[in-house]
Amino acid sequence: MRVEGNGLTRIDDPADPRIAEFRDIKERDLAGRRGRFIIEGTVVLRMAAAAHGAGAFEIEKILLLENRLDGVRDILATVPDDVPAYVASGGVLDAIAGFHLHRGILALGRRMAEPDLDSLIDTLPKKALVVAACGISNHDNIGAMFRNAAAFGADAVLLDETCCDPLYRKALRVSVGSVLSVPYARGGSILSLLERLAERGLSIWGLSPSGQSDLRDIPPESQGIVLVTGTEGEGLPDTVMNRFGTARISQRPGLDSLNAGMATGIALYEIARIQQKI
Amino acid sequence: MRVEGNGLTRIDDPADPRIAEFRDIKERDLAGRRGRFIIEGTVVLRMAAAAHGAGAFEIEKILLLENRLDGVRDILATVPDDVPAYVASGGVLDAIAGFHLHRGILALGRRMAEPDLDSLIDTLPKKALVVAACGISNHDNIGAMFRNAAAFGADAVLLDETCCDPLYRKALRVSVGSVLSVPYARGGSILSLLERLAERGLSIWGLSPSGQSDLRDIPPESQGIVLVTGTEGEGLPDTVMNRFGTARISQRPGLDSLNAGMATGIALYEIARIQQKI
Repeated sequence: MRVEGNGLTRIDDPADPRIAEFRDIKERDLAGRRGRFIIEGTVVLRMAAAAHGAGAFEIEKILLLENRLDGVRDILATVPDDVPAYVASGGVLDAIAGFHLHRGILALGRRMAEPDLDSLIDTLPKKALVVAACGISNHDNIGAMFRNAAAFGADAVLLDETCCDPLYRKALRVSVGSVLSVPYARGGSILSLLERLAERGLSIWGLSPSGQSDLRDIPPESQGIVLVTGTEGEGLPDTVMNRFGTARISQRPGLDSLNAGMATGIALYEIARIQQKI
Repeated sequence: MRVEGNGLTRIDDPADPRIAEFRDIKERDLAGRRGRFIIEGTVVLRMAAAAHGAGAFEIEKILLLENRLDGVRDILATVPDDVPAYVASGGVLDAIAGFHLHRGILALGRRMAEPDLDSLIDTLPKKALVVAACGISNHDNIGAMFRNAAAFGADAVLLDETCCDPLYRKALRVSVGSVLSVPYARGGSILSLLERLAERGLSIWGLSPSGQSDLRDIPPESQGIVLVTGTEGEGLPDTVMNRFGTARISQRPGLDSLNAGMATGIALYEIARIQQKI
């Protein structure tokens, strides 16, 4: 077990360079900065610890409020001893973070090599369920997509180059750590991404209030199904709508379409049932 | 048509008492203050204009960025001339609001008499679909519930006394104005609220990952169905879980439950289909 002086170091100076990455975390977001990102809270730390060492993510250091230590002992026990863990008082921790950090649990994560889209596609099982997001820059929506992808057993999330990084603090938090468990790749245009999935025999369905098919009527294709979500305002580009199948979620007429995260969640729920994944 | 000097007044001084309610709107939330609330953006203003005069809500005044005026002329035309409308430059408007208000559209709404739970229940149709929320204090979740209630044709949203006011700025915004269109009542304990619905013959179903029935197997009761949602962490109290039917949303095992707004959305989608409302 880690104790102070043995795997656990006390921080008394908010300016201590060993915890510099946690300074003023609201003001600057580490996502994209050499793959570093901020982990917050017990649940996300647990997901990060589970992912650590599996190849995609690593925990670089941990910073805890002193009275939260006992609550995460079981997680710390699963993190190798060479990952530094620091503790601080509430006053010091708040001075580091730049605001009152009531959760009291922080860690610095690092994404290892960015996965390549083709190798990710190679890992997809038969009857795959994939989410493809186009232009989703809202951190809540990206987080919700990952959380729902995990809840309904999606095999991958693919983000086009205009989506935000899912490792942004808020996206990761809203995903309740699912960004660390659901395989994903990010980059390229939505059309090139979808073409590559179509070449592999996956069936592509763009979600839209004006979709041609009711979501419930999508057949359980043997190679798998890709659900494509666009932004709320713009929707999916015509190039996608004209090239692939389109599906709508039944709802009352004359209303604003559903929130992008919500639409993806309902579509995943529906297709996971059709594919007998849930 | 309103023009300056005729139904439209220019504001040059951020301290002008006529627009005092819009000052520093991020810092103080009007919800609950004599029923006043802040309307933001074109879509919510349009919903408020549609609700104005129908008895439940009123627009008291409107404040617009000067170059947004043309975009809302059609809405203004539906608002009686005795509702004052003000315009301001970007600099003045930002100084009033206390931050950069890129939407440039504000209004002050007022909720008329709080609806009484019993009279609201009296207005429910046969085969009603009702959402009952227990302890939902997160503004995003409350907003999402209303938006989904509108999307899937729910007849009412009932909030127990521990839920937040849905007229809070963020809740109203996230609902895309649906708080102004879906009938709702707020107050009382969740159990007393549900008992009154049960007395009227409605079938009560608590949503829970440990629910006894799969949501899809809920029969389309003739009097109607009430879906009860609790907070993510705590879930529904035992008093509710033991007294009424409970239903689960199929999902992958071993994961954190769905977000409360998301769970309500999926449940509404499913039950609206069972009731053939969508």
